Amino acid sequence: MDQKVKSDIDIAQAAEMIKMKDMVEKLQLHEEEWEPYGHYKAKISLSVLERLKNQKEGKVILVTAINPTPAGEGKSTVTVGLGQALNKINKKAMIALREPSLGPTMGLKGGAAGGGYSQVVPMEDINLHFTGDIHAITTAHNALAAMLDNHVHRGNELKVDVRRVTWKRVLDMNDRALRQVVVGLGGPLQGVPRESGFDITVASEIMAILCLATSLKDLKARLAKMVVAYTADEEPITAKDLKAEGALTLLLKEAIKPNLVQTLENTPAIIHGGPFANIAHGCNSVIATKMASKLADFVVTEAGFGADLGAEKFLDIKTRAGNIDPSLVVIVATIRALKMHGGVPKDQLKEENVEAMKNGLANLEKHVETIRNFGLPHVVAINRFIHDSEEEITTLTSWCEQKGINVELADVWAQGGQGGKALAERVIHEIDHGERNFQYTYEIDSSIEEKINRIAKNIYGAKGVDFSPQAKKQMAIFEKNGWGDFPVCMAKTQYSLTDDPTRLGRPEDFTITVRELKPSVGAGFIVALTGNVMTMPGLPKEPAAMKMDVDENGKALGLF
Amino acid sequence: MDQKVKSDIDIAQAAEMIKMKDMVEKLQLHEEEWEPYGHYKAKISLSVLERLKNQKEGKVILVTAINPTPAGEGKSTVTVGLGQALNKINKKAMIALREPSLGPTMGLKGGAAGGGYSQVVPMEDINLHFTGDIHAITTAHNALAAMLDNHVHRGNELKVDVRRVTWKRVLDMNDRALRQVVVGLGGPLQGVPRESGFDITVASEIMAILCLATSLKDLKARLAKMVVAYTADEEPITAKDLKAEGALTLLLKEAIKPNLVQTLENTPAIIHGGPFANIAHGCNSVIATKMASKLADFVVTEAGFGADLGAEKFLDIKTRAGNIDPSLVVIVATIRALKMHGGVPKDQLKEENVEAMKNGLANLEKHVETIRNFGLPHVVAINRFIHDSEEEITTLTSWCEQKGINVELADVWAQGGQGGKALAERVIHEIDHGERNFQYTYEIDSSIEEKINRIAKNIYGAKGVDFSPQAKKQMAIFEKNGWGDFPVCMAKTQYSLTDDPTRLGRPEDFTITVRELKPSVGAGFIVALTGNVMTMPGLPKEPAAMKMDVDENGKALGLF
Repeated sequence: MDQKVKSDIDIAQAAEMIKMKDMVEKLQLHEEEWEPYGHYKAKISLSVLERLKNQKEGKVILVTAINPTPAGEGKSTVTVGLGQALNKINKKAMIALREPSLGPTMGLKGGAAGGGYSQVVPMEDINLHFTGDIHAITTAHNALAAMLDNHVHRGNELKVDVRRVTWKRVLDMNDRALRQVVVGLGGPLQGVPRESGFDITVASEIMAILCLATSLKDLKARLAKMVVAYTADEEPITAKDLKAEGALTLLLKEAIKPNLVQTLENTPAIIHGGPFANIAHGCNSVIATKMASKLADFVVTEAGFGADLGAEKFLDIKTRAGNIDPSLVVIVATIRALKMHGGVPKDQLKEENVEAMKNGLANLEKHVETIRNFGLPHVVAINRFIHDSEEEITTLTSWCEQKGINVELADVWAQGGQGGKALAERVIHEIDHGERNFQYTYEIDSSIEEKINRIAKNIYGAKGVDFSPQAKKQMAIFEKNGWGDFPVCMAKTQYSLTDDPTRLGRPEDFTITVRELKPSVGAGFIVALTGNVMTMPGLPKEPAAMKMDVDENGKALGLF
Repeated sequence: MDQKVKSDIDIAQAAEMIKMKDMVEKLQLHEEEWEPYGHYKAKISLSVLERLKNQKEGKVILVTAINPTPAGEGKSTVTVGLGQALNKINKKAMIALREPSLGPTMGLKGGAAGGGYSQVVPMEDINLHFTGDIHAITTAHNALAAMLDNHVHRGNELKVDVRRVTWKRVLDMNDRALRQVVVGLGGPLQGVPRESGFDITVASEIMAILCLATSLKDLKARLAKMVVAYTADEEPITAKDLKAEGALTLLLKEAIKPNLVQTLENTPAIIHGGPFANIAHGCNSVIATKMASKLADFVVTEAGFGADLGAEKFLDIKTRAGNIDPSLVVIVATIRALKMHGGVPKDQLKEENVEAMKNGLANLEKHVETIRNFGLPHVVAINRFIHDSEEEITTLTSWCEQKGINVELADVWAQGGQGGKALAERVIHEIDHGERNFQYTYEIDSSIEEKINRIAKNIYGAKGVDFSPQAKKQMAIFEKNGWGDFPVCMAKTQYSLTDDPTRLGRPEDFTITVRELKPSVGAGFIVALTGNVMTMPGLPKEPAAMKMDVDENGKALGLF
């Protein structure tokens, strides 16, 4: 393949988009059910869900992956490509994706909304301010922080212990200098000094809530429950105690509406919500997935990181919150990542190495088992990269066939929907004929400890879990506080099935250490931390922002 | 008047708006020259200015006021009412207003976009996220801050003195706890600790720049010049030194486009930009005013605070930056404020007091003289309030007539455009027949000291200016740095012609003290501080946010 490779932004800017007023007509939306944001973005009113409440829902296809390389496995690219391919084989399909965060765009990434000929557009808008949802979350989050500090400053009736404030502030920015700050300096007119910090907005509990809420009413009920601080006696103080939930809901009343855009091939795509995949569940919104399933026969959606994190959370958390009944899981693997799991150093992944790839297959095998254990039909999609050799591909497909694993090559990056037709046909076939007996990893009313144990053993393949004394104490307190019946959201490295990012492949005979728990009471899950999680990234030495620009006609430059 | 008074939001939500697709047709915009943001907001492309560059510009009418009461004189209400009234007398008029800041909406104000039957709509949108311009400014401002701290963290090649960083961070929030903070805590991985703080976004220099820029190219050139810090030798370090101006311009490429909405009577209105009126110039964007003047025969626009601040800055700063040639000034006065200037305590302003009002007329007289000195036709508009007595009104109008001052009663709050017809007729008459010989307060190439002296003497009626030793030193440094030819932006209390907010009426025999200067090199002005200016407001004991809500259909509640 020595064709000249065009950059993502060049391909995206050359796209022939159709206007949203035409797109909504194809989707048979009524005039009052949508609002344009520019000619190529729209928001869909939640009233559509009400109008179509008795309509049969489309089949939900989840795209997940093996444990990825640092560059990722291309889940978004395969998701977009598969959606395009389904339309090419005359299925009515829609895509539901997460919204990228602007902060990392300014840092390392430069931009992300699929890749090559499987992208969502308008790419610049999606990577910059889009329809303002993340800004609305930033505003709501910080309004609550301001109300909390104002409460403390003006008499502190609720007896907030300033050493036990858990609600930080957020910005959609990679800004390491804000990770740990002291606020309230300057004397009695400037508030009460205390230690605090900033997270990136997508790590806000409000983002997780927006993505799990099923209606405006549910959104408000969840916002009210958020715990922001504790008293000296460790009694939780909530957003409702601060009388903030009405204003926060008001600030989010547009953000809760899903955003409609399109792929390079004019397949309708909803991009809505993008919570972290470690301290949160890493999926686009329930409302987006529901909306797409009402407007199409097939919905292709994704979840962050590998199947041990994203798919587990999609299946154990999101499907419960949204009453979603998934039909099939696509497991994305790349030859590169398999070689990495087989021991190849990261700078040599472009070189052919069939033996190493074979050694790495154990990682894929584990994730296939995981999805089997969920009782769902599945297809492995090999996301083709330019440097993959024919022998590597053949070896991989033969291995899958020997093992009775459904596999298809997806060349969607280079060929768009056309390169995903075989995958699309296979997906349809498996939905129609595959065995299906969906079950969760754990019972929701089992103890927090039991839930974590089941995830560690059944999903990661661990022999057990070590809980720190702090975690044990917290489990007792949380259950006393009435938070015992929440699902668990594991915060673990994405690079390994273990909690050690250097242990690749399919490690055995390991334990998971749960250091600390955090309640996300509004989102409705308990976060179990197995290591340090970075919730405010930093900028690299040469931030991508330094190369960004815009020409005199307003055309974006330097997003890639 | 014992009619039941409806709240602003009730009136606004009952408005019969026309859709933007119909509005842009009336304005004869081409299809590619506008973008919808919902059905009732739109952005206008800057290409319209290019297409209409040879078209004669409409007459620009500036609405200013006497020194206001803390509740304000209702400049926005009169601006909207006059625009509506001009259309009622068959003139093609547009309105150009500032965008309200969300932070204060959550605090005391609850919402503001005119009042009564002279409002711009959709009111909730305008008061909440609108089209995201302020969020884009927040993002651009904080991206620069992150790039600066990242530069220091990663070797500090530019030799930034962390004690001399002038670029703070911003949020569109009233959040006193962020006024003074320490950032970069937590050890070598979290950056370099230093003192800093947050301003409210509308106090960002980027807001001032957005409002003075004439094109995307000019925007970028101004952003590049912003001074963010100094070396230990006090050499300025700019956004360009950090290679940030391209990314910042990219982040602002939509925000620079003016926003089209409408009044309750469907008069087209542009709402774009809202810089502080003390540390910045307090006017909507140059681009908004220009755009309106290309699309209509009359543009009614406003400037913050009273004529001593807003009108002076409009006339000395904005008209220079935008090459705007104003035709007439409307000076808004209220009976309430005149009584306050005549010595009535704030809690008794509703009671009739003709004598006190007469004593307060000196304040009005001074502002009329100021506009006369600018050589511009003018009309005093009495913004009618429910509690004004007939005798108070008659006394005021007679006094004006005796003094040869054009005056009209404007009952636009209660009656909309209908209540402003007399004012509109008078405005047109004065534009056509009034004497006009527009001149600035100072020559742009006179010294900073001379410019401040001229403003203090000619606009405020001071006998002179005291400069602190620091201000004197700064004037010398700024002129050495090549910033001597900028206009001056006075930061002074809005309540008095002096720098002491308690001295009402028309004080005499006073001096103005200039404590400190600040360069806004990108915006292109030197801020002269005459007292402490609050650039990050706080929340009151019971923030307006506590009463805000949204019903299940998404209708906003508690904005008023």
